[in-house]
Amino acid sequence: MTSSSSQSPDAAKPPARDPWDLPDVSGLVVGVLGGTGDQGRGLAYRLARAGQKVIVGSRAAERAEAAAAELGHGVAGAANADCARRSDVVILAVPWEGHAKTLRSLADDLAGKIVVDCVNPLGFDKKGAYAITPEEGSAAEQAAALLPDSRVTAAFHHLSAVLLQDPAVESIDTDVMVLGESRADTDVVQALAGRVTGMRGVYAGRLRNAHQVESLVANLISVNRRYKAHAGLRVTDV
Amino acid sequence: MTSSSSQSPDAAKPPARDPWDLPDVSGLVVGVLGGTGDQGRGLAYRLARAGQKVIVGSRAAERAEAAAAELGHGVAGAANADCARRSDVVILAVPWEGHAKTLRSLADDLAGKIVVDCVNPLGFDKKGAYAITPEEGSAAEQAAALLPDSRVTAAFHHLSAVLLQDPAVESIDTDVMVLGESRADTDVVQALAGRVTGMRGVYAGRLRNAHQVESLVANLISVNRRYKAHAGLRVTDV
Repeated sequence: MTSSSSQSPDAAKPPARDPWDLPDVSGLVVGVLGGTGDQGRGLAYRLARAGQKVIVGSRAAERAEAAAAELGHGVAGAANADCARRSDVVILAVPWEGHAKTLRSLADDLAGKIVVDCVNPLGFDKKGAYAITPEEGSAAEQAAALLPDSRVTAAFHHLSAVLLQDPAVESIDTDVMVLGESRADTDVVQALAGRVTGMRGVYAGRLRNAHQVESLVANLISVNRRYKAHAGLRVTDV
Repeated sequence: MTSSSSQSPDAAKPPARDPWDLPDVSGLVVGVLGGTGDQGRGLAYRLARAGQKVIVGSRAAERAEAAAAELGHGVAGAANADCARRSDVVILAVPWEGHAKTLRSLADDLAGKIVVDCVNPLGFDKKGAYAITPEEGSAAEQAAALLPDSRVTAAFHHLSAVLLQDPAVESIDTDVMVLGESRADTDVVQALAGRVTGMRGVYAGRLRNAHQVESLVANLISVNRRYKAHAGLRVTDV
């Protein structure tokens, strides 16, 4: 218990936190805005199948309810604003074209929520897909600018909607890069990703580095075309 | 041998080429410009260890020769221009800061060569690494603009220089995303990546989609810091 002059200067530091020590998120309600699109349906299905309480949101409550009934696993459907208000974590799976408009209209409903942006701003021409650079830098940074009262993160970009939606696929063998400014928030999103069989949530930086994660989907589209695959990504050595 | 009206309309199409049917590149000479830096040394070491003939280039021939002697495995050293002229494939592993200047001075020496840009334009501040966007879109597109007579590709961005250089590491468990405009050229670079134990070269699109591949290194730096790792990437389902 005595202090020694030979002690390492690092010895007083608390031990580094285990990055895999993530919170229990099994009780959180997850909303999926754009939950009637392919990516949204796929994410809703996988999370609900893993036991998470999921609400899919759409502009029209009836469409959301119809999608929810098809998805099963206890998924509920609601109009976007209602979906946002009833959820703890809200995944944005809307098309890039409607991203800013949707967020502006839902800013109050999303206040205080953990928002997970999984939107990939891409353009398409005869040569394939290419990255679009939003004025704010990325879709996630646009969300952060439009939702100053929300806790914005970015994740779930590199998943195949085909694999997510296929009930015969038992395991989604892809890591989910999770970006954000607050460790408490990214930890929750990582834990959520980890609920899905095969998936891991891996912290991958701040929102200012979201653009390349979003636009890498253009490259995965090229991979899919060349290899006739549903490509995803694994981070090695972690 | 008779033609039938019930024949599929697709039957006359040639079968799709197997994307893993890659050329034999074992006889090619590989130059590594910036071959005395960590990334360049690491790539030179791995390729030479795999049996490839490698020449490391540096501004000063003496420095290149000293690095080559340390690397062993038959690696030679030469001044940059000499290295470029004697090589079939030239990997650019120079710092981003010197990228344009180096290429301008070597355009004639690199004419006709397959050039592999592995440069990641990044900035660093107290919050870590962030992407820099070159005026041309990416380092690789800058190279293509400055080297109109070369066959410019982009690859080898996501490799840990620490692992590459560690002789105790037997296998580099990372895929190499290869980008370019010509399939003949990207096939060569993919085959080259595949020479290294553990590595695969995976086609990942055209040069216009190089920026996100280059700048994803900022995210891998965040991963390395959080997980105390030497992160790389695997493309799943291919």
